[in-house]
Amino acid sequence: MIEHTNEAIRNYYKELIVSSDLTKAILYSVDAGGKRLRPLLFLMLLEGFGIALNNDHYSIAASLEMIHTGSLIHDDLPAMDNDDYRRGQLTNHKKFDEATAILAGDALFLDAFGLLASSKLAPDKVVQLISFLSDASGSRGMVGGQMLDVKGEHQALKEADLVAIHTNKTGKLLTFPFIAAGIVSDLDEKGMTLLQKAGQLVGLAFQVRDDILDVTADFSELGKTPKKDIFAEKTTYPSLFGLEKSTSILNQALDDALGIFESFEKAYQFDRQAIKTIIERLRLHA
Amino acid sequence: MIEHTNEAIRNYYKELIVSSDLTKAILYSVDAGGKRLRPLLFLMLLEGFGIALNNDHYSIAASLEMIHTGSLIHDDLPAMDNDDYRRGQLTNHKKFDEATAILAGDALFLDAFGLLASSKLAPDKVVQLISFLSDASGSRGMVGGQMLDVKGEHQALKEADLVAIHTNKTGKLLTFPFIAAGIVSDLDEKGMTLLQKAGQLVGLAFQVRDDILDVTADFSELGKTPKKDIFAEKTTYPSLFGLEKSTSILNQALDDALGIFESFEKAYQFDRQAIKTIIERLRLHA
Repeated sequence: MIEHTNEAIRNYYKELIVSSDLTKAILYSVDAGGKRLRPLLFLMLLEGFGIALNNDHYSIAASLEMIHTGSLIHDDLPAMDNDDYRRGQLTNHKKFDEATAILAGDALFLDAFGLLASSKLAPDKVVQLISFLSDASGSRGMVGGQMLDVKGEHQALKEADLVAIHTNKTGKLLTFPFIAAGIVSDLDEKGMTLLQKAGQLVGLAFQVRDDILDVTADFSELGKTPKKDIFAEKTTYPSLFGLEKSTSILNQALDDALGIFESFEKAYQFDRQAIKTIIERLRLHA
Repeated sequence: MIEHTNEAIRNYYKELIVSSDLTKAILYSVDAGGKRLRPLLFLMLLEGFGIALNNDHYSIAASLEMIHTGSLIHDDLPAMDNDDYRRGQLTNHKKFDEATAILAGDALFLDAFGLLASSKLAPDKVVQLISFLSDASGSRGMVGGQMLDVKGEHQALKEADLVAIHTNKTGKLLTFPFIAAGIVSDLDEKGMTLLQKAGQLVGLAFQVRDDILDVTADFSELGKTPKKDIFAEKTTYPSLFGLEKSTSILNQALDDALGIFESFEKAYQFDRQAIKTIIERLRLHA
């Protein structure tokens, strides 16, 4: 499943190559690994609906991962988080240079919509998916949240500020797989609302987990420099609530998301086993 | 016409604001002026086809201008062309900071597709437009060409290299208004080929003109620092062919484009007056 998603990205970059330097830099970050959480959430949800996966679905998964990868390349830049390592290897601008890293991120953002538009799903669904993906990633989502995050460094933030950063910076793009699965499977409005809620809970869990691991994990576990948040004096879940409470917020969010899928299974023809496996991967033990 | 395009961009940034710092930085560059050449080409072509312009068309024009503006913000960054002035005012990273400028460009790229997807044209047309806009702007177009340009500095390039840079960096996005007008007006394949050819000629003319003005114009005419190409030891049309020959290449390309519209007028119900006015603005006299 991950293999097919990776292949969809690689196939896009086999065609119509203008600058091989650029393609090389893009694929360096694409191939750096990563858990492919967002594609997996989307594809596992489709499996739950009993949909036979095909290249159109992998293109959607791939476009989502491309935007995520582009955002990591830009977040690591010296003017932003200034990170030297990501996914256990040198960051894009360290491996190449800053100009290349800026352009690699730009290309991934712009290319993602072309790959998504190449999907052979009904055009009105494709337009809907593009609309949601843009909202989740641009000024109304991820990039807006990253701006809040950058402005919030070295400041004591309240919980509401932290929620606003997380909801936008990571939450909306993590909710996209849920909304996208609903669009692809022609879900009714009530079902969409439930899926969206589950997505928000998973998004929250993911971010709390990220905050916790920044404190507790070492380089080999993280693949990047740990304790960056403390250095940047960032307000995080552990800094506001401590590790124990943060872990319980994380696990509660996962339980709530799983609870939604339990009721979902009864109301819709949905098998929750596949999505449950992915969601359980986010659990941490105190 | 420009007014409606600007309004479409401004309206997009009135809603769902996550970070007002980000919106402010985006609108700073959007409002910096600029000739709005790409939107005008698109809208004037629609006028030529006798299409009554409405908000759907302005959304398309606006999304195109948003991608262009995003690319200018990123091109000006210290790691790229390192420019302090653009359109007669401080560049985005000089007015704000580098992180803000990176995010403002990112947002403009990602937001553009959401605005385009909000157009109420037939969904299959919207998908086609998105596909072409992505190809024109991402690794297969503008960003790919910018990478070639960055790599080509301080090197003696041949004409073919220069053409490859220009075709991708500026040519494809300048051809988009022509292709988009063809899609919107349901043009047949032969007509599309002609429009695309006209777009390529206008794209060539624009770039030769840009190269010439870098040598001949002063700050007040350019709105940015002149003679940057010479400083960066860039291969340009004037450096390869001299000013006189370059000017004649430029004007010949415009004549050829106008020639296409002359034959176009006969074959299709098309009034070439509006587009002629815009194309003539690019002419320079030796």
